[in-house]
Amino acid sequence: MSACWPNWVISIMSTLPTEKDTVRDTPAQSGQGPGSSPAREGGERGPSKFDLLLASVQKLLRRGAITNLTRMLGRMHSADIARVIGHLSSPKDKRTIFELVRGEKQRGLVLSELDADSINAVVADLQAPDLAWLLKDQESDDVAYILGVLPPERAQDALALMKADVSTEVAGILQYPKDTAGGIMTTEFFSLPEDATAQEAIRRLQQASDAENVFYIYVTDKDDHLVGVLSLRQLLTVPPGTPLKNIMTRDVMSVMVDMDQEEVARQVASYNLLAIPVVDREHVLVGIITVDDVVDVIREEATEDMLKMAGALEEDVLSKSSSLAAAKLRFPWLFTNLFGSLLSGAILWYFRYTIQEVVAVVSFIPVIAAMGGNVGLQSSTLIIRGLATGLIEQADAWKVFFREIRVAILLGLACGLLLTFVGWAWHGQGYLGMVVGMSLIVAFLVSTSMATFMPILLKRSGVDPAVAAGPFVTTANDITGITIYLTLATLLIDYLR
Amino acid sequence: MSACWPNWVISIMSTLPTEKDTVRDTPAQSGQGPGSSPAREGGERGPSKFDLLLASVQKLLRRGAITNLTRMLGRMHSADIARVIGHLSSPKDKRTIFELVRGEKQRGLVLSELDADSINAVVADLQAPDLAWLLKDQESDDVAYILGVLPPERAQDALALMKADVSTEVAGILQYPKDTAGGIMTTEFFSLPEDATAQEAIRRLQQASDAENVFYIYVTDKDDHLVGVLSLRQLLTVPPGTPLKNIMTRDVMSVMVDMDQEEVARQVASYNLLAIPVVDREHVLVGIITVDDVVDVIREEATEDMLKMAGALEEDVLSKSSSLAAAKLRFPWLFTNLFGSLLSGAILWYFRYTIQEVVAVVSFIPVIAAMGGNVGLQSSTLIIRGLATGLIEQADAWKVFFREIRVAILLGLACGLLLTFVGWAWHGQGYLGMVVGMSLIVAFLVSTSMATFMPILLKRSGVDPAVAAGPFVTTANDITGITIYLTLATLLIDYLR
Repeated sequence: MSACWPNWVISIMSTLPTEKDTVRDTPAQSGQGPGSSPAREGGERGPSKFDLLLASVQKLLRRGAITNLTRMLGRMHSADIARVIGHLSSPKDKRTIFELVRGEKQRGLVLSELDADSINAVVADLQAPDLAWLLKDQESDDVAYILGVLPPERAQDALALMKADVSTEVAGILQYPKDTAGGIMTTEFFSLPEDATAQEAIRRLQQASDAENVFYIYVTDKDDHLVGVLSLRQLLTVPPGTPLKNIMTRDVMSVMVDMDQEEVARQVASYNLLAIPVVDREHVLVGIITVDDVVDVIREEATEDMLKMAGALEEDVLSKSSSLAAAKLRFPWLFTNLFGSLLSGAILWYFRYTIQEVVAVVSFIPVIAAMGGNVGLQSSTLIIRGLATGLIEQADAWKVFFREIRVAILLGLACGLLLTFVGWAWHGQGYLGMVVGMSLIVAFLVSTSMATFMPILLKRSGVDPAVAAGPFVTTANDITGITIYLTLATLLIDYLR
Repeated sequence: MSACWPNWVISIMSTLPTEKDTVRDTPAQSGQGPGSSPAREGGERGPSKFDLLLASVQKLLRRGAITNLTRMLGRMHSADIARVIGHLSSPKDKRTIFELVRGEKQRGLVLSELDADSINAVVADLQAPDLAWLLKDQESDDVAYILGVLPPERAQDALALMKADVSTEVAGILQYPKDTAGGIMTTEFFSLPEDATAQEAIRRLQQASDAENVFYIYVTDKDDHLVGVLSLRQLLTVPPGTPLKNIMTRDVMSVMVDMDQEEVARQVASYNLLAIPVVDREHVLVGIITVDDVVDVIREEATEDMLKMAGALEEDVLSKSSSLAAAKLRFPWLFTNLFGSLLSGAILWYFRYTIQEVVAVVSFIPVIAAMGGNVGLQSSTLIIRGLATGLIEQADAWKVFFREIRVAILLGLACGLLLTFVGWAWHGQGYLGMVVGMSLIVAFLVSTSMATFMPILLKRSGVDPAVAAGPFVTTANDITGITIYLTLATLLIDYLR
């Protein structure tokens, strides 16, 4: 593309799609996108191609240049369109763009890539029949996702109008909690009876147009129990007449329909699978989870943990455009924190005579308060992330604990000595420094113990460990730190005068 | 499996492997693993199957029951063995287990799944020839990873002893920075000239045994430029004589060899690809990146961000078993923090007369110090994560900023009013409360502004935004908060008496 064209033209040109763009398992899926941009634009610096794309869409929107918009959207990958819509703040704009996307199939794909808010925005004034029509070509897991974020009655109406087989599949998925294997699986998979031949398999494969991601062929017995699996390549390497049961691998890794999605992700990741079959308690094959959905799960779980640790709890705060809604989500933690810090304040108040007596004491309060919490935060982050990635197992609890304690002691000694010196150098007397140093070491030990055990205990009792790094531990740390410090100071007050 | 068997037997039985276990692109790869465990064990509660597996390995190690260990390892998936080794603390144990794994191929696979520390531990007393022998059957990207974590001279020696073609491939990968497309790609991919026929393609496919993850067939022109791509299924659906150039999709999404791995991951994820081809500046196909490696990248990047935000910087702290090493990694941040909090302390010391005069002032110092930092942390976490997942673009900077400010004002008013009341109720006079409330609101605004802009500015200048949530912003917040508070208190001191 000639360099004299404006950037945004290039960025559009570079997202030429193909009809097959929408079929998951053909590489045409990878219709030219930002992917092929020169690396510089892939790097961190400067506005990305997407920034330019977004900018030009917004420009055209303001100008109301509908024709150009339509042409431009016609050239974009569904994922990019969805991303653009997600970045528009006004629901009206979201709707405008969405309605300019041509073809139900493409619009359905865009829909399935949108966040909950945007979905509700764009389908706001669609009638149930139109909604059902939009969803008719979509994978059952995508339909389930979309209906899952709509108000229940709307979802029901749409579901009622869809083809019987589809709606039962979707209803089947919707019945499982969103964060379990059943909730993220697709029911479109490619399975064959064990006594089918390689040749039949290939013929069936040639007909199957809508099966999502066919790389594994799952083999079932007459009662639909999962009995084996084979790859396309295996199929090509045997004489046509061979029955599948002779070439299939009998020990298939599978997950139960109610397994936690984080655990599913961990397995697909650690065994490098492209897809994992989902079975019910009778080992009947009910669906598959493909690696692209696993990628989303891993990302989502990581985000969740980070937000929990910052006490911003819900993932929606990211997408929530209403500041009031965001504030509501964030307030509870701040409130806990406010309460906690008021307790620390009460402790300072309780020791006010010590403070008035030896005012130099105040100059170390921030140190004690901050440091204990920080060492704790470091430990709990390590543990929480370790647990999430499987680097730490509950079996390691004690090992990890003692390691963290050793680290805390080392860090405590380092900082403690430093402070002892500072205290002496600053206020011209060594005792204060010693008091500060000692309290710091104790504070480190207390906070590290809490930070290490909370996550593990929480995990053991089925709660997400990430919440441990949140309000409670941090504030608890501040309080204990200050209490230790001022108690020591009061006991040794005669030496501090 | 009968319930009367001890857990660990069951957990071993459930990891029966197959020979094909080691070939990436056959589903047998998914040799029965924890995957098929009853969902309860997949869930959060209780010891996982892996915990039991680990426990029994350790038991056998203590007993020195070599024969049992060997049999047990012979039944385990390479990923599980690697995970076990990663959890053993003593290098000696790591080595023992590794040496009991039978077959170079399996041992090589285990090696490629290990963390840097474990790799160095298990190959410690291997001679270069043995090392080269171990790596001979591995994918070039795995070899590159393994050699990448060894001391350079050792890597060189091993490389020198490997087959010329392999070593050049590996050297090719090693020349790229670890965190770029070139650094994580594999050079084993399946490509064909554009005028080959479907039939030839299938024949080639049947011969190709070692091509990693063949689901896309990349088509190149006579100068190895990437010109097209097609899927196995497309291959099956055309008459045998058809030349590939007639059925291939011409617009292939690809990434440049020096693109940042995080960007690569984002694209593979958002376009639901299984593999993305890597090209050099001349658009010559040099390798592919498969989705399983992308999964690792996404995990790694999320972990990195979380650790950076906790100021524990390096990812190795997770694996580092030596507490001294861990302490060294964590100290710098604590030191910055120590310094920062000492500054806050200095400010308190500067205002000591105000404090002695109106000691009630101290009872709100922790509140001001803590709250500002927290609101900031919430904002920066949202932004950092948003930037990492592409939910927030640099283009949104202002939009995001104003949203966060609105949120900060709402939260500030809520907490401010609360504190005004507390101050009045607690110390029986309204002015102090008002001072606290007002300073809190100001503190919120300052910290939110910093927390919102730092990450975006850092990203713009090519630095990882995650560091912004770290030391500087947090301590800066405490300092500003306290300064504002005590300045106000001093100005209004006559009303506070």
